[in-house]
Formats: sequence, C-alpha cells, structure tokens
Amino acid sequence: MDFNAQLDAALKRLHDEGRYRTFIDIERRRGHFPKALWNKADGSQREITVWCGNDYLGMGQHPVVLNAMHEAIDATGAGSGGTRNISGTTVYHKRLEAEIADLHRKEAALLFTSAYIANDATLSTLPKLFPGLIIYSDELNHASMIEGIRRNGGAKRIFRHNDLAHLRALLEADDPAAPKLIAFESIYSMDGDISPMKAICDIALEFGALTYLDEVHAVGMYGPRGAGVAEKLGLMGRIDIINATLAKAYGVMGGYIAASAKMVDAIRSYAPGFIFTTSLPPAVAAGAAASVHYLKTGQELRDQQQENARVLKSRLKALGLPIIDHGTHIVPVHVGDPVHCKKISDMLLEHYGIYVQPINFPTVPRGTERLRFTPSPVHAPEDIDRLVKAMDALWSHCALNRQQLSA
Amino acid sequence: MDFNAQLDAALKRLHDEGRYRTFIDIERRRGHFPKALWNKADGSQREITVWCGNDYLGMGQHPVVLNAMHEAIDATGAGSGGTRNISGTTVYHKRLEAEIADLHRKEAALLFTSAYIANDATLSTLPKLFPGLIIYSDELNHASMIEGIRRNGGAKRIFRHNDLAHLRALLEADDPAAPKLIAFESIYSMDGDISPMKAICDIALEFGALTYLDEVHAVGMYGPRGAGVAEKLGLMGRIDIINATLAKAYGVMGGYIAASAKMVDAIRSYAPGFIFTTSLPPAVAAGAAASVHYLKTGQELRDQQQENARVLKSRLKALGLPIIDHGTHIVPVHVGDPVHCKKISDMLLEHYGIYVQPINFPTVPRGTERLRFTPSPVHAPEDIDRLVKAMDALWSHCALNRQQLSA
Repeated sequence: MDFNAQLDAALKRLHDEGRYRTFIDIERRRGHFPKALWNKADGSQREITVWCGNDYLGMGQHPVVLNAMHEAIDATGAGSGGTRNISGTTVYHKRLEAEIADLHRKEAALLFTSAYIANDATLSTLPKLFPGLIIYSDELNHASMIEGIRRNGGAKRIFRHNDLAHLRALLEADDPAAPKLIAFESIYSMDGDISPMKAICDIALEFGALTYLDEVHAVGMYGPRGAGVAEKLGLMGRIDIINATLAKAYGVMGGYIAASAKMVDAIRSYAPGFIFTTSLPPAVAAGAAASVHYLKTGQELRDQQQENARVLKSRLKALGLPIIDHGTHIVPVHVGDPVHCKKISDMLLEHYGIYVQPINFPTVPRGTERLRFTPSPVHAPEDIDRLVKAMDALWSHCALNRQQLSA
Repeated sequence: MDFNAQLDAALKRLHDEGRYRTFIDIERRRGHFPKALWNKADGSQREITVWCGNDYLGMGQHPVVLNAMHEAIDATGAGSGGTRNISGTTVYHKRLEAEIADLHRKEAALLFTSAYIANDATLSTLPKLFPGLIIYSDELNHASMIEGIRRNGGAKRIFRHNDLAHLRALLEADDPAAPKLIAFESIYSMDGDISPMKAICDIALEFGALTYLDEVHAVGMYGPRGAGVAEKLGLMGRIDIINATLAKAYGVMGGYIAASAKMVDAIRSYAPGFIFTTSLPPAVAAGAAASVHYLKTGQELRDQQQENARVLKSRLKALGLPIIDHGTHIVPVHVGDPVHCKKISDMLLEHYGIYVQPINFPTVPRGTERLRFTPSPVHAPEDIDRLVKAMDALWSHCALNRQQLSA
C-alpha cells in the first residue's frame, strides 16, 4: 500500500479543480481593526485591511471583552484544567451560560468548544433521545449540521433551500407518529439570505415537529438585544433549540445551544462531543460573557454595521457590480468563475492591501464563485471608499460584466 | 409526540443507574494551584484542593503561559475572527504549529480546537484519503477516537485492550492488499497503563499499516522534551500520526496532529471539522506555544510530578488501599461500587475540602468504579499528607477492603 501516492492523488485533485487552499498569515492589530499585518511568504510584512472576517462587529478588540479576559487570566489562569464534569466547570462557564439563556429567553444554555461541535454533537445526540427521529434539513445548512445529522445514520430528509412546499411534502410523506425535527439557519452565510422562519415554525407546529435553528451569522447583530433573527421577528419562543457562536459577532470563541432546561440537561448528559472534551478556558468564557452582555444594549454597533453594509452595497450597485443583496450585513459580489475570483482576490491583496478570500466550489456551487465582503462598524468611510474604487478598477481590468445601473 | 416525556425518560435512566452528573462549580486561584474556590449550590464559597484536574503540571498558572496570553490579547485582540482559510490564520497559529512539529520531529502539525475534534476529524477523514481503509482500534480508545472511526461507516476492527495476539489475528484475517491503520493511545487515562508501543509498531510494519497514536495523557510529561511516551521509547519516527492536546499538561486549550507534510496537508484540505470552524483565539495559541516551548526543557516539572505520584502511590499502598499502579502519573484507587465511590467523593469534598470526581460506569466498566487522583508539581507535601490521611479515615469509615500491605 503506497500511502504517499494516495495522498499525492488526493492533493492533486484539489490542485486540478483549482480548490487547493493556501492560508494567508495575518495578525490583526488591536485598536486598529480592520487593519492587520500580512506576513508574506518571503518574510516581509505589509499592512492590509481585512474585509472577509467574521468578527462582524469588531468586538474582538473591544475593551470590555479584553479586560474581562485579562482579569480572568490573572484570577484563575490559562485553561480550565478539565472536562465540565471533572474539575472543568467554573464560575465563568456558569455565568456565560446564564447570560446566553437570558439572551434567548430560554431556561438553559449549554456551552461547547465551538458552534461546529455544538451542531454536530447536538444533532447527532437527538436521535438517541427521540428514537426514530426524522430530521428535515435545509439543503444549504452548514457543514457542521450536515455532519451531525449524518453521524449516526439516523433518518434524514433534505429539503430544497427555503422551499416550504418541499418541506411540507416531505413531512406529509412520513409516518405522522414519527418524532420529527426541522433544522435550518436564520441567515445563510454565503448569500446572506434569510429563511422563512415564521412559515417554518407554522409547519413545525402543524406536524408536531421540533425546531432547530442555527443563528451563527445573526447573534449579536439582529434583534433588539442581539439574540438574532428569531428575536427580531418575535419567534424565539417558537424555536426549541437555538444554536449559535461566540466566535463571530461576539468576537471570541466557542458555541452553544439554548433550549428548555430538560433538553439542555439531556444533551449535556448524552453528547460525547460535550462530555469528553476540556471545557473552554475561563478567560474565553469571561470575554464571551462580557461581549454577549455588552451587545444586549449595544445597538449603536448594530446600527453602524447595517449602515456600512447599506453604503457598501449601494455604492457597488451604483457601479453595476453584481452584488447579491438580501438585506443582511453580508455582501457577496458574484464573479461566477473560479479563476477570475481567485485572481481578483489576489490583485486586491497585492495591489490594494485589501484582503478578501475568494469563495469557490465546493463552499458554493460552481458558476457562483464570489467575493464575500463583511463590512463592520470598524470599517471607516475611507476603507469603504478604497474598496469600492479598487473593485471598480479591477472589474474593468478583468473586463467582467456589469449589471444595468438600475439593478 | 410528547418530547418532554421522552426527555424525562432519558434523564430518569441516568438517575436510576446512578450516573446522572452534577457539575461542581469551581474557580482555581492563579498562583495558588491546586487551591480553588468551590461555589456551593447554597451560594456559599469554600476553599478546596483540586485532586482530579488534567492540568497535570500546573502550567495553567505558569507566568510564561499567562504573559504570552496577555501579550497576544494586547497585540491582536480576543478571537481570531475567522476559519483558518478565511482570515483566521495568524502568526500565533503558525508559530504554534511549528513548535509542535519540532516537538514531535515531524514535518508538520495541524491545530484543531480540541484533541477531541482532532481525533474525530482526522480518523473520519482518513478513509476518504485511503479508500477501503480498515482501522484497527484498541477497545479502550477514547470516545473521540471511537466517534471518528465510526462516523462515516468505514471498516473497523476492535482489538482487545493491548492484546497483540488479537490485533495480529484481526490483521491476518483481512485482505493483505487493503490499506490499514492501527489506532491506539500511549497512556490510557482511566488505569494509567501504557500500550506495548514497540510491538504495535512492529506489527504495523509487518502488515504495512499506518500507526495513529493518541498521546493526550503523555505530552509535556514523558520524554526528554515532553513529546510523550513515543519520544521516551525512541519510537516517534515509527508513528505516522501523533494526536495530542494543549489542554492537559500544557495547561491551555486546543488539540493537534503531527505527521508528514503531505498527511497534514491532506487532512487540512479534506476534514470538515478543521475547515469549517473558527480557529483558536490567538491568545490561546500564544499561551500554548509558550507552554510547549517551556516544557521542551522543563524537566524539573516532569521530575517533580513523577516524584509526587511515587510518594502518593507508596503512601496509599502502605495503607493497603487498592491502587492501580502502572508506573504513570495517574493514581486510580479502586472502589468497585458506584454508591461507595460517589459517597467517598462527596465526603472528601464536604469534610476535607478535597475535590476528586468519582469515575463510574460507563466511563469505566461496572465493578471497577474508582477515584482517580492526579498529583502534580503544584501539590505540596502537606496536600499529599492531608489526602492520604483523609482516604485512610474514609476507608475505615466505609469499612472498605484493604489489600495486604505487601501488595
């Protein structure tokens, strides 16, 4: 068995398909977000502006977050020292879980090391709790949901993206007595589009299904206290399990679910991905708790993010650039070709110091390759101006299509 | 469908079997390890001594680690702001990966958010890289390895714990042309026993199998530079993939694999659990790198840990307490009954301020319930003395068996 030859073949497939990834090595500069130092392969450094990060509100440099982290390190040290059950539950974890439960108006919350593992562990554990469970999953759900749903070979049905008729048809085709769960996201991160949440909740009610909602790209940013789209729409009480992250708008790390006390207790007790892993460092929990707490009233950051997104979208539209606009903070510009997409990204970085990662297949379907900008409150008007001018110049340079200005 | 009734039933099963877990809420005190504040359910606080943590060397309070974390927070903020591919690769991650690759004398290393996800993601991805791969897995491998091996329904064979004849018989029964991998640990954490690593490597060589070694309970503590048991035994070069954690002896958080550059590149490119998750906070990576670096020469901590383990074991043995001694730093005391085990743990905490979590089924087989002590360099002679006297008193109080003093 020539293992090296097989590895070569696996890597060659990626190169051949133009989807071999090279990581850009950067260091953001606290107090100067979205500026970062780019460490080039030749050893030189250059200041760049990050336009593709998921620290959507710049909370990763906010003093309330950083002070909480410093204080926790001084008080209690670096790591937690154990799993949640074996010496790794601290006051910091408890406080953060209480903060999150309050955020989503749920009885309880449960921390995981990431929202990825929160999705994976929860969705793979639910069929143990509800034997025969059928999970109805939106086809564009995140990889972590797909992995969790797949894991133990439980029953699943994939409905076309946001397609209520398809979801209903699948539910109708199954045994009415079977336990059911509908798993979906509030904001899908690649297009920035929003699910028809109320209609899905209505269908869930009709069929007696549980609802599982991923608010990873919405928490901190939507709703009067930043609890997400479900809060904004007044639907939080109709979602049985809310999943989200502490690593994007909250700017730190970690993930969670919020649900009824019983549901949380059962997941806590049965999910290997929760039980058998070291808990988050206290400083991470402290920073995240400070961030969640701050954003319960930090409306000005939400407003500024939306305003920057609006400005960026309208300026790109005015130039005829094909942006995908679903009214959220995510600004994808459609390129439609993997080579052009990568090339524009490279030129933005090299010639303009603007860092935006190209999004190619398989993250998005072939033919829909795109650049995905994430304007935030830390982007100044000059940053937006520089980005718009650079995109205009490169679009002409590459002779890419423009939409009618009325678009 | 009455979901609540099903949750009740699932939770009742745990209560009925005596394995419902209640987390103890503590806060370790930096500079005073192993002391911690216990936040009792009634709101009062009490100082306790932690005897069951996995911060095996006390690095979680070491100034080199904490300073590195503080500095990274001041320089670059809280979270990384993205996945490794999309703005979440920083100089801190690169430095830590270089530090780890050097530690294990491998070409490359790859960070994950935990060793749990490192095992799960790597072992579930290997069958994609080597179609038809058969994984031979020790029956006592950690839950994360089991989950990873199970995930995609790939071929697996479970060999009896450390049973070379069984492993060989399983290998002989399979197609010689099939790609194979043997997955095992260096130190099994519940008994503290060590695998017959050289013999397993010999068998792997004979059958052309890859070797996958989990050194989670060994890194930092064994080998002249703390690279683990494989380093101690001079076998590191014969292990294809080494998995370990930054959350136990290194005192921080995160996990990794170390392997050939090609292997790491392929896992990096194909493992959803690596690709689709926010990278570790820079401060966590900085703290971990400082810890790994420090322990490459920190032999005095390793020596002191072994000395404390030796003293604790010999004193408990001298009292006739049934300890399981395989010569490692883990000190399990066999109780053999879940009720007694929980009761002694409760009394140690309530009456003596000594915190050790009971280990019951299913973490260990029924009838082998135990208390599992983890002596570390931060435990003072007085701490050991107090623990030994408390155990002596409780053993008598509960009228538990003692071994012959010669045992």
